[in-house]
Amino acid sequence: MLSDIAISRAATLLPIGEIARRAGIDEAALEPHGRFKAKIDLAALPDRGTRRGKLILVTATNPTPAGEGKTTTSVGLDDALNLIGRKTMLALREPSLGPCFGTKGGATGGGYAQVVPMEEINLHFTGDFHAITAAHNLLAAMIDNHVYWGNALGIDTRRVSWRRVLDVNDRALRSVAAGLGGAANGFARETGFDITVASEVMAIFCLARDIEDLQARLGRIIVARTRDGRAITARDLKADGAMTVLLKDAIKPNLVQTLEGNPALIHGGPFANIAHGCNSLIATETALGLADYVVTEAGFGADLGAEKFFDIKCRQAGLAPDAAVIVTTVRALKMNGGVAKADLGAEDAAAVARGVANLERHIENVRQFGVPAIVAVNAFAGDTPAEYAAVFEAAERQGTRAILCRHWAEGGAGAVELAEAVAEIADRGGASFAPLYADNLPLRDKIETVATRIYRASAIALDPHSERQLARWESEGFGALPVCMAKTQYSFSVDPTLLGAPHGHVIPVREVRLAAGAGFVVAICGDLMTMPGLPRTPAAEAIRIDERGQIDGLF
Amino acid sequence: MLSDIAISRAATLLPIGEIARRAGIDEAALEPHGRFKAKIDLAALPDRGTRRGKLILVTATNPTPAGEGKTTTSVGLDDALNLIGRKTMLALREPSLGPCFGTKGGATGGGYAQVVPMEEINLHFTGDFHAITAAHNLLAAMIDNHVYWGNALGIDTRRVSWRRVLDVNDRALRSVAAGLGGAANGFARETGFDITVASEVMAIFCLARDIEDLQARLGRIIVARTRDGRAITARDLKADGAMTVLLKDAIKPNLVQTLEGNPALIHGGPFANIAHGCNSLIATETALGLADYVVTEAGFGADLGAEKFFDIKCRQAGLAPDAAVIVTTVRALKMNGGVAKADLGAEDAAAVARGVANLERHIENVRQFGVPAIVAVNAFAGDTPAEYAAVFEAAERQGTRAILCRHWAEGGAGAVELAEAVAEIADRGGASFAPLYADNLPLRDKIETVATRIYRASAIALDPHSERQLARWESEGFGALPVCMAKTQYSFSVDPTLLGAPHGHVIPVREVRLAAGAGFVVAICGDLMTMPGLPRTPAAEAIRIDERGQIDGLF
Repeated sequence: MLSDIAISRAATLLPIGEIARRAGIDEAALEPHGRFKAKIDLAALPDRGTRRGKLILVTATNPTPAGEGKTTTSVGLDDALNLIGRKTMLALREPSLGPCFGTKGGATGGGYAQVVPMEEINLHFTGDFHAITAAHNLLAAMIDNHVYWGNALGIDTRRVSWRRVLDVNDRALRSVAAGLGGAANGFARETGFDITVASEVMAIFCLARDIEDLQARLGRIIVARTRDGRAITARDLKADGAMTVLLKDAIKPNLVQTLEGNPALIHGGPFANIAHGCNSLIATETALGLADYVVTEAGFGADLGAEKFFDIKCRQAGLAPDAAVIVTTVRALKMNGGVAKADLGAEDAAAVARGVANLERHIENVRQFGVPAIVAVNAFAGDTPAEYAAVFEAAERQGTRAILCRHWAEGGAGAVELAEAVAEIADRGGASFAPLYADNLPLRDKIETVATRIYRASAIALDPHSERQLARWESEGFGALPVCMAKTQYSFSVDPTLLGAPHGHVIPVREVRLAAGAGFVVAICGDLMTMPGLPRTPAAEAIRIDERGQIDGLF
Repeated sequence: MLSDIAISRAATLLPIGEIARRAGIDEAALEPHGRFKAKIDLAALPDRGTRRGKLILVTATNPTPAGEGKTTTSVGLDDALNLIGRKTMLALREPSLGPCFGTKGGATGGGYAQVVPMEEINLHFTGDFHAITAAHNLLAAMIDNHVYWGNALGIDTRRVSWRRVLDVNDRALRSVAAGLGGAANGFARETGFDITVASEVMAIFCLARDIEDLQARLGRIIVARTRDGRAITARDLKADGAMTVLLKDAIKPNLVQTLEGNPALIHGGPFANIAHGCNSLIATETALGLADYVVTEAGFGADLGAEKFFDIKCRQAGLAPDAAVIVTTVRALKMNGGVAKADLGAEDAAAVARGVANLERHIENVRQFGVPAIVAVNAFAGDTPAEYAAVFEAAERQGTRAILCRHWAEGGAGAVELAEAVAEIADRGGASFAPLYADNLPLRDKIETVATRIYRASAIALDPHSERQLARWESEGFGALPVCMAKTQYSFSVDPTLLGAPHGHVIPVREVRLAAGAGFVVAICGDLMTMPGLPRTPAAEAIRIDERGQIDGLF
């Protein structure tokens, strides 16, 4: 088969105005960015706020190096639903620019299930992440500038928690000493850079209801503490207004199309560890106002992605999902059953039968939220009937179905059976969504609830310093916030090599952070990397413009 | 009169497709960014490369805190030329985002002589500067990454000259220690951040003929030296291709309009001290292919801006300007005549008569390049006829004319007399442009030539280390490059308080830098600030979205 980029290039894209027409978006609401991308001016969308569509979450088993194809399946399902006559819209995350130049690979689906134009979406797209970077770094500059000019607010420069961000993989910036070089450059202090997707501004951007809510949330960001522990916010620094102005266009959702010409909103993209890992609420709500079915996606596996989608995004926004699709592959389940990546080529139904423990756990977990779940098995060449049978049986044991999908090779036509099943579940109205825990549960207990009920740990290990921080935040009025767990995506435990369905382990909470603007408390369990590095041979080395003016080496 | 932003908002903008039609740009070449901005796909422009237009440079006397209105005059002249039936196009620089949040003020003209939409142009515009930032910082990350993975090229980490950039005023980033925090974060070393407009990528972007030339120039950037002094380039790191890919859309010129609906290209914006301070060559050439007259502008006063426009941009590109307009004001000349800013309100024709020495010097200088010069006196309320007379007389003494312009208050109609005079000069064909010095003059002598013939210094003071560097670069094959002088913009000397027309001073060259990609040698004379700081009360503090969804406090 052709490469993703070859398929993308061979496609005849429809003008974005035609896609808007198909989506029911009035011409007056369209702000084109080139011929095939547009921002939607929500002020010109009369129906925004009316949620008429059914909300379908696409999540997955724990990711493995074999690749599961969650975005690919989201696109395939969307195309298939449209193919069977259901008016459906995609709401997905924007890819981060930085990693494109590290390890080869985009984030726009694959095969015949892609959103396009893939090169533009994977590069600068409509500039949203650049705007977020600019807003984040303006706030950072205003902190040091405030200290420089006399520090009237009494910021303790040892307790500035607001770092800077860049959308690049650059390990040398993880930890820096800034303000060096003498009095004219300010006060020296330790700080560092994260990648833009790890910015709290990104999380806020994706949880804000509208621009007023955006400005209010930005104002609530806690950037530092005074010597006596008082919180200093972006609002105290009067940075919230200018940050909002920098985001005023970015906050408009981006319209593109699938290879089959169906409308897709791609907007926002926070990390799924330190943040909640879903596209913007504004895009989700816009899609719900325009379509009968909305297919959206959450980062990593269901233990991280779906849990946060439900407990953070749906809780904050009052969304009630109608169905969940858990994507898996025979290859991923084999790895969960103990097979090494190098040995994935050989048939091993027994390994799949062991590995389905991971899938079954995720099905159970999604159901805890009152959301019906169905399994999509993303077909790969080399999978065998016996291996598929092991997956089907596991789904049946859990009282649901696993459906084989061939959208990667066949586009929407390859996912029609899945689409019919999903539409049936969503139409049946059997969902009774509720978050996992109540708002008024103490913060410590919220962490414990996720750890024991989702990760199936026996306990959490919280050090006294973190205990005191949680208590302080409760006393400051942040006790009703949900928690955002930052944990390895590869395992239910904190050990990335412990695949399958481990239980009885302990979840150590290394650190807690308050994201007062985004509206959650981050519990960091194990190592957390918020600024990736480049590999020995970065993908960037092979990327260039070829003789025909096309990008060579990007994907 | 209304504020700039009020005038801009009250204007009825034409759809960008209509502006393109007026400019003679085919619909197929237009990539809209919203309704009022577009990028032009040069591949779809058949006539690119044919320079049919007359090139008119707008430059100025030395800038003063009183403000001269060079961009305003460029816009007014463009509108006036169109008003008298001459098909004219503007080619201007893009504003930098960072300073917008520092000291109040945009860079899109003023009064009734503006390019619009001014808020969008002053904020992210079409994302060009973000793309330049990303390309610059990818290269930086690839340097440290190369060292991290074994440093096969033998980079001396003490001799990495490539810093990082951000489009923000952030003094705390001027000098940083990066790579701290342990082995996983690489090798600790001193570095720092400049503002994006100071990036060599920006200078390259503005001097490249096309995307192939862009990639070749990016590859020639020298980022570091080995222990034995060998140059390490972006090409050695294989970063040039990926950087070009990051710039492939940015390199397309941006089309907007003046308040009077005339087409304007706004593209690129390098510093006028460490770089050459002109909009992109691609925009200038595109305009020359489309219009009969092209009005363009150079940064700061004519000693820096015009000299670099002639000696760097025109030399490299083989452009031959037809006329130059030197903008001045009674207020600026009063300050050059010794009046303090606080006293500018009182009539003082004698001070103007003293201050015109500055103007006369610039007229003489421009003529040294074989380009006829005319003076535009940008009218301010409070100017008196006696003061104007002093300017007119000075121009006459130099054998040219000074023409009073009221475009700020009246739009193009206020600059018709200037337009007629400029068109007459350009049409007469009296220009015989030649750069100030030959390519084969030694680098030291090039610096001395600019210092003595343009700044009227008696000598330069070059320390032995810089002498050795220049000699080394000549031996490495860079001897034919022009020089780019980085000096205070306020004076012909290196003392910013020495106004008027000083002579006989010494120009100390503090440091020399090789910009091998941009194709010039920078001579830093006096202090050079490449990362501004924010003032005590940043403009950002007052900026927010108001109740009507409009930006409040930006300008």
